[in-house]
Amino acid sequence: MSLTEFPLIQRFFTQQRVKNPLTALGIGDDCALLSVPEGYQLAVTTDTMVENVHFFAGADPEQLGHKLLAVNLSDLASMGARPLSVTLALTLPSVDEAWLSAFSKGFLGLAEQHSVDLIGGDTTSGPLTLTVQALGLVPKGKGLMRSTAQPGDFICLTGCLGDAGLGLKIKQGYVCNQTHSEAALARFNHPNPQVEAGLALLDIANACIDISDGLLADLGHILEQSQVGARIDWELLPLSEPVKGYINETCDWTMPLIAGDDYELCFTVSPEKAVLLKMPFTKIGVIEALPQIRLYKSGQLQSLTSKGYEHFS
Amino acid sequence: MSLTEFPLIQRFFTQQRVKNPLTALGIGDDCALLSVPEGYQLAVTTDTMVENVHFFAGADPEQLGHKLLAVNLSDLASMGARPLSVTLALTLPSVDEAWLSAFSKGFLGLAEQHSVDLIGGDTTSGPLTLTVQALGLVPKGKGLMRSTAQPGDFICLTGCLGDAGLGLKIKQGYVCNQTHSEAALARFNHPNPQVEAGLALLDIANACIDISDGLLADLGHILEQSQVGARIDWELLPLSEPVKGYINETCDWTMPLIAGDDYELCFTVSPEKAVLLKMPFTKIGVIEALPQIRLYKSGQLQSLTSKGYEHFS
Repeated sequence: MSLTEFPLIQRFFTQQRVKNPLTALGIGDDCALLSVPEGYQLAVTTDTMVENVHFFAGADPEQLGHKLLAVNLSDLASMGARPLSVTLALTLPSVDEAWLSAFSKGFLGLAEQHSVDLIGGDTTSGPLTLTVQALGLVPKGKGLMRSTAQPGDFICLTGCLGDAGLGLKIKQGYVCNQTHSEAALARFNHPNPQVEAGLALLDIANACIDISDGLLADLGHILEQSQVGARIDWELLPLSEPVKGYINETCDWTMPLIAGDDYELCFTVSPEKAVLLKMPFTKIGVIEALPQIRLYKSGQLQSLTSKGYEHFS
Repeated sequence: MSLTEFPLIQRFFTQQRVKNPLTALGIGDDCALLSVPEGYQLAVTTDTMVENVHFFAGADPEQLGHKLLAVNLSDLASMGARPLSVTLALTLPSVDEAWLSAFSKGFLGLAEQHSVDLIGGDTTSGPLTLTVQALGLVPKGKGLMRSTAQPGDFICLTGCLGDAGLGLKIKQGYVCNQTHSEAALARFNHPNPQVEAGLALLDIANACIDISDGLLADLGHILEQSQVGARIDWELLPLSEPVKGYINETCDWTMPLIAGDDYELCFTVSPEKAVLLKMPFTKIGVIEALPQIRLYKSGQLQSLTSKGYEHFS
């Protein structure tokens, strides 16, 4: 029997029971229906992953399912939103049951971890392209934006920088014989969206973004939209042992500044409020009134040429 | 200067000012923020269009932009939801400024007509694939579902059937010398989502779906999910002059039953409530307790072999 669209969606993506009491109607009708409690706003984001652009042909489908959801939950996290539900638009070159089974395992596994309901989707035939739209809840007027950084704010990061970038280099074969290469690969393949950290930043941070395109590019969005600048000290960057090892071997010290896919949060917070933060973070610099990023390394101002990955550039 | 992702989105898709007072934060941050008024639920839907599957290579980009949004608004309409906002995930093989300009004109033109805000998106490089997620508002508990048709309900349609199917045949070159071929082509290229009709059905209709995959397939979803059947009389089908002309010439009388893309609403309503409807509609049959569709033509029960278009079938 050939699998048609409807049994396909049902078979692989509706095993999950509705997790969230706010889901009034899930998959199976023309629309899903959601309740949004009083005092909250809905945070909405969408991200697409395309074969041979965002992932290699033949990529592990379970990791892919996890990562596709993770990058969308990361956008919610950077707004301080609690994930609520997602839709999934799958364009597939063929119906590969083993692929779909593994993909849905990765996707629904992370969804379950965050009590996120898959409430709708569309399955089409065509070149492998995966789009999620994610919906979350944020207390009214409290969403963490890019445009509200203030001069004097500390610039801070959750987690470490550059591990996913190192993972990509290992995957591409540019780097080998690395100790701890498994850990770096895992950071690339299996990012962990900083949902709890985003929630902990509400009412404390002034601005926030997630690091998907690299620190310089993403911090750059905060600076541009807040009409401020920044001083960053390279020595303050939180680097894992594998990334330190890579830099020692290659002298490629800009990698953690420009590599993407870390999905940590970069936020700014006033010195007075920074002491209220009940979560691990690293201060890497300070917001200044003067536009642009000034990067210091060994006390010397560095010249920056690359700002991270941009499509079509 | 090469266009990078951010200026590209800004240039073509943010000319539109925010139309809806419920849009608290539009394009430009990690998420958009929406207010949902008390007493309403959020209706959520997503639809993808893929080149060479849903549209021909080289399709008119302005028509494509219109149609992509129209098919999503049609899903909201079939729920009785008032459109609120959309996100747009564009996967493009290259940056073609003329294409983007025309596409955004078609997309934003229809958005403006329905006071829909484009609140977010993602632009990626890859094979041409277009995904929209649409959000709408429906009074709490009033959403028109597929699963609530009742035996004895009239089965009704807004508008006519088969025009888009005829338009497709004209476009494919299977049909020529048709009178009124322009009108049929327009129905295929430029569907009109039945948003006002959907709103008018609230509190009156028992079940509703939009006709995207053909009457038999889409009515079939209502029957399956409501665990009922239907009697349809072919002579009651609302057919335009071009479609009647096509059937007279070809004897292909099943076309209006199985052709998709009409984006009219098919709804069921009790005889008592049908008299309350303040909109044009056509009764084509009756819901019955016995499962399956029974189609009568010239008083004879017909045998049905095709149920419309399904992906991967």
